[in-house]
Amino acid sequence: MFQRILVANRGEIALRVIRACKELGVEVVAVYSQADRDAPYLALADRAICIGKSASTDSYLNIPRLIAAAEVADVQAIHPGYGFLSENPQFAEICRSCNFEFIGPPHEAIRKMGLKTEAKRIAAEAKVPSVPGSDGGAVSDADALRFARAIGFPVLIKAAAGGGGKGMRVCRDEASLAGALQTARNEAEAAFKNPSVYLEKYIDRPRHVEVQILGDVHGDVIHCWDRDCSLQRRHQKLVEEAPASYLPIEVRAKLGEAAVRLARTVGYYNAGTCEFLVDADNNFYFIEVNARIQVEHPVTEMVTGIDLVKQQIRIAAGEPLGIRQEDVVSNGHSIEVRINSEDPDHDFRPSPGKITGLRIPGGPGVRWDSHIQAGYSVPPNYDSLVGKLIVHAPTRPEAVARMRRALDELVIDGVKTTIPLHRTIFRNKDFIEGNVDTTWVERVLMPQGRESAAGG
Amino acid sequence: MFQRILVANRGEIALRVIRACKELGVEVVAVYSQADRDAPYLALADRAICIGKSASTDSYLNIPRLIAAAEVADVQAIHPGYGFLSENPQFAEICRSCNFEFIGPPHEAIRKMGLKTEAKRIAAEAKVPSVPGSDGGAVSDADALRFARAIGFPVLIKAAAGGGGKGMRVCRDEASLAGALQTARNEAEAAFKNPSVYLEKYIDRPRHVEVQILGDVHGDVIHCWDRDCSLQRRHQKLVEEAPASYLPIEVRAKLGEAAVRLARTVGYYNAGTCEFLVDADNNFYFIEVNARIQVEHPVTEMVTGIDLVKQQIRIAAGEPLGIRQEDVVSNGHSIEVRINSEDPDHDFRPSPGKITGLRIPGGPGVRWDSHIQAGYSVPPNYDSLVGKLIVHAPTRPEAVARMRRALDELVIDGVKTTIPLHRTIFRNKDFIEGNVDTTWVERVLMPQGRESAAGG
Repeated sequence: MFQRILVANRGEIALRVIRACKELGVEVVAVYSQADRDAPYLALADRAICIGKSASTDSYLNIPRLIAAAEVADVQAIHPGYGFLSENPQFAEICRSCNFEFIGPPHEAIRKMGLKTEAKRIAAEAKVPSVPGSDGGAVSDADALRFARAIGFPVLIKAAAGGGGKGMRVCRDEASLAGALQTARNEAEAAFKNPSVYLEKYIDRPRHVEVQILGDVHGDVIHCWDRDCSLQRRHQKLVEEAPASYLPIEVRAKLGEAAVRLARTVGYYNAGTCEFLVDADNNFYFIEVNARIQVEHPVTEMVTGIDLVKQQIRIAAGEPLGIRQEDVVSNGHSIEVRINSEDPDHDFRPSPGKITGLRIPGGPGVRWDSHIQAGYSVPPNYDSLVGKLIVHAPTRPEAVARMRRALDELVIDGVKTTIPLHRTIFRNKDFIEGNVDTTWVERVLMPQGRESAAGG
Repeated sequence: MFQRILVANRGEIALRVIRACKELGVEVVAVYSQADRDAPYLALADRAICIGKSASTDSYLNIPRLIAAAEVADVQAIHPGYGFLSENPQFAEICRSCNFEFIGPPHEAIRKMGLKTEAKRIAAEAKVPSVPGSDGGAVSDADALRFARAIGFPVLIKAAAGGGGKGMRVCRDEASLAGALQTARNEAEAAFKNPSVYLEKYIDRPRHVEVQILGDVHGDVIHCWDRDCSLQRRHQKLVEEAPASYLPIEVRAKLGEAAVRLARTVGYYNAGTCEFLVDADNNFYFIEVNARIQVEHPVTEMVTGIDLVKQQIRIAAGEPLGIRQEDVVSNGHSIEVRINSEDPDHDFRPSPGKITGLRIPGGPGVRWDSHIQAGYSVPPNYDSLVGKLIVHAPTRPEAVARMRRALDELVIDGVKTTIPLHRTIFRNKDFIEGNVDTTWVERVLMPQGRESAAGG
């Protein structure tokens, strides 16, 4: 096991890694930008090193400064957390070339999985279905019609150069295809100076289901079952659950096996997540791999009892997994809500500032993962996540009731937060009954906030 | 299910019951004394009623005022918590005669189990071994010798009229018996104006093991496995664990079965605990039944996933248990430490006062059950428990490491607490290795605080 680890991140995930190190008896070195110099979690690390000014590019995204801190602190490994450099294959490679173990997957696997076309190719090789599409290549009107007929309507027209919903159009029948292609090309040209578009099968009101995987450096790979993260607003997850309890166990098992096949195919190790869309008939389609620990990892920890961050560290230290697939049992139901310092009444604009009061929920089945304390100032420079409230209970209805209770206890004074939004969600009939999909928040809960018809 | 419940208690257990009610969708009415009028948990109840002055006898021990509050609030049931009136059979009987269901066992069972001789008789009937003894009857020197030879040395000489260690003597051989009897009689005469003494088998360095039971009003009784509460100081529990992991599973199963037999014999229902002493050869001896929810109930909740307080309420409402014994599985290891506002450096004298700062631990496997908040003043009038810190992990070593980590995160400013004592305990080799018994705290950890040689 390592003697000392550096955490190349900030906020709640930095604290999460510090906690794992403390429990493993490993020394832990935190880094901070000037904006984070008064962050209370720094005192829980064995050492804290300032790596630069507040801008991420001067600190948490600055590879030379992180490597310098690792040299100074004489660590053996670097945990990248999520966000920032966590999925940057160059950072992983530089860490390893400087003799710091990168606590994450092989950089080759990160690189391959970061390329959409390559990831789809690997999925096909692993016999894992992806969303059928023209694979990013520009299509003519004639190609588009042939392709749409082959995969069936509705189809989604997407800008080849784009992202963020621009140049995206749903087309539900042949009659409207030519017009939709033209509109999408015009939007794409305006947004990206490139009118090329391609086609994908449009999954109507899909669920977002993802599978947690763990692999060791000796070639052993297991899955830790699934999470549902369908509650999203503008592709940002709001609420995450484990398991995706509406899926039959056979489908859940197939998802898990598909994720393991994919990981094996690409020589993956450490923790990772395979994301899928699931349609109304429980067909699933691979979207992407997140080659890092995820924000929502606690719900998997709650149902499986596996400490994923400790496992990441053990795996990076070369330890064998030592967990058999058949021993990974998903017990009960867990839900996480993301508490952001944002104003849901004003288009979720960030609400940084000083936390003047804090009441943390407690009692059975309640977990609070957060770096904030009363008196702490949320800096305006970074992500607005200020805490994750997680519950666990024997069944989903009990977990929903527990979260409602815990949300009523939670008080954060001084900044606007998403707490009121979550209180609304946990009293909503659709949500309580599980009748939600990735389009639900924008389609039903806050239709005024809808930004495009694409929805997926 | 009830529409509305009154909680006839205060502090953390009042909050615990409020949380259970909220999750069950039951309205909950809190009561408070003048000393507790600013207690923050009162705001979480649907209603809070002042029942009198600060003295317990004017408030939490005042049956007429509690019944009046229940009448005013129009509740259907009363939860007594622990301490105060929770094991008062008269209170249970009065509640029921006033048509308020008492959320606890039948008052007849509370009454019988409260009488030491009667409890031992019932244990014998249920074929559950008690500590062999002369059953409270005064013994002559000749009787004592005959009895000591029958049960074997060492024996414990106890004052018939007494308690609190006065008139208590351990005698390890025949040669010292007459002298020990005389010393004990002299002490008993001085303390209680009654020189009568009786004999019990002396269990050397016993472990305290207890079994959680649950029974419904339809006659179904199950056990929820065991807890070890050997870490005690002057008979006050400091640290509690589930399970008693040093016991072979066969012994744990036998303990569970014994507790269920005992409960059935006395017609017990609702939650309760059978307490045992266990000797070095894993022989167990029944001590007493606690006919209520216990302070340490969370460790059982953590390993079994059963919400004991919700179960208490469901049982009182007449619901069948609906849990089969074979489905009650003890998963992993849980530990609770009691955080008291006491000064361990000055003989644990109470340290009431204002909480000026509070940092609550979080992250995986950590639970915090507490009514305190920053700005809250701990009143001097009641028990000094200010919080229970509970952890859960797959194994005992991991749970110990997690507790150590969580204790390092926990900060309570403004009052003295037992946090430093617990930090010492969780770094102690004996404790880490599980080599402790009920005499260990006073014998090894703080021998200066030892009050008698009796130790049991």
